[in-house]
Amino acid sequence: MKCSLTTLHKKTTSETDVVDITEDVGDAVHDSGVLEGACTVFIAGSTASITTIEYESGAVSDLIRAIERLAPRGIHYDHDARWGDGNGFSHVRAAMLGPSITVPVKDGDLVLGTWQQIVLVDFDNRPRTRTVHVQVIGASSARQPR
Amino acid sequence: MKCSLTTLHKKTTSETDVVDITEDVGDAVHDSGVLEGACTVFIAGSTASITTIEYESGAVSDLIRAIERLAPRGIHYDHDARWGDGNGFSHVRAAMLGPSITVPVKDGDLVLGTWQQIVLVDFDNRPRTRTVHVQVIGASSARQPR
Amino acid sequence: MKCSLTTLHKKTTSETDVVDITEDVGDAVHDSGVLEGACTVFIAGSTASITTIEYESGAVSDLIRAIERLAPRGIHYDHDARWGDGNGFSHVRAAMLGPSITVPVKDGDLVLGTWQQIVLVDFDNRPRTRTVHVQVIGASSARQPR
Repeated sequence: MKCSLTTLHKKTTSETDVVDITEDVGDAVHDSGVLEGACTVFIAGSTASITTIEYESGAVSDLIRAIERLAPRGIHYDHDARWGDGNGFSHVRAAMLGPSITVPVKDGDLVLGTWQQIVLVDFDNRPRTRTVHVQVIGASSARQPR
Repeated sequence: MKCSLTTLHKKTTSETDVVDITEDVGDAVHDSGVLEGACTVFIAGSTASITTIEYESGAVSDLIRAIERLAPRGIHYDHDARWGDGNGFSHVRAAMLGPSITVPVKDGDLVLGTWQQIVLVDFDNRPRTRTVHVQVIGASSARQPR
Repeated sequence: MKCSLTTLHKKTTSETDVVDITEDVGDAVHDSGVLEGACTVFIAGSTASITTIEYESGAVSDLIRAIERLAPRGIHYDHDARWGDGNGFSHVRAAMLGPSITVPVKDGDLVLGTWQQIVLVDFDNRPRTRTVHVQVIGASSARQPR
């Protein structure tokens, strides 16, 4: 059994920036030497989320609009009234979509669908450098036949 | 420590089909021989999700209606305009609910609540045969008392 | 490799009660002796969720209001019509936010952001004593340099 933690730093350029991190996560899996197991992708911070989507510009913009309906920018947020950050909507969106996913690993690769990418969704109202932790745990060689 | 990956194939019959896969996942846990650990359930593909719900027809239809409000079928989706799949709403819904959950394993069983079932939620606009990966990792015998 | 399961019991006081359980989860990680690995937090039951948020009263009340918009209390729910529990909205909310998150562990601690807390969100319409399972798995000593 092996256990490997890789930390990614990804720059985001604007609010609700959706960044494809599939290749980075796949590289972390390959580097770990784990052939069968589980890969957790976790975003540190309370104004961003991790999920999967077909990473093409249409679906990405559709997701952004749906999130805008879920927690619109222009309404009152108590967080903003107290702290003046102006990113109350970011906190709500991130809490609803969640900070982590876990993807199984088989034969050394993520078992994603063909059109399924792992994305970092940054909801904050300014550019950030995001810290994403990729935790891989599992067996480093195939199990022997029983 | 053991590590076991089981792949399920589940037929879905229509859009927003909610399928109870608790028994399949429980069987995968039992077959793994893991007594204490973690079980990840992951859906391959970008138009379906995994979550838990009390699997009775009332709660299931309530969930379907809430998802319809979140990302309605009848509005404009850029994904449809570009690709003509007609399932832009499916992509948005799946990205918001997420592709995976992880359930701890204790004494060889999932630690679900009494009325809590694991469900595959298929958002696509046509019947599919879905691939669900069940990854179990943990200890195969109880820890010795200290 | 180590594997450790801790069960928390948390009282909730009212509907949509958001409880900060970060310290409890951190204690479970410390007690496990795991230095590097993954920590899954799972809520047993179908009317509550686990997520992360900046735990300050403004962001928390903003989240509660957004969830109320997502699945309002005052509308019709089939679950209520069938079972008379009056908590159809609770089931829908819990299924949409999800029952689990997984947080990597590094140097014996959760890799949370500075303003990121782990919360139990109870959607039920009455006080409950909630069962939260904290599953930690990983290496109990740092890997040797290669």
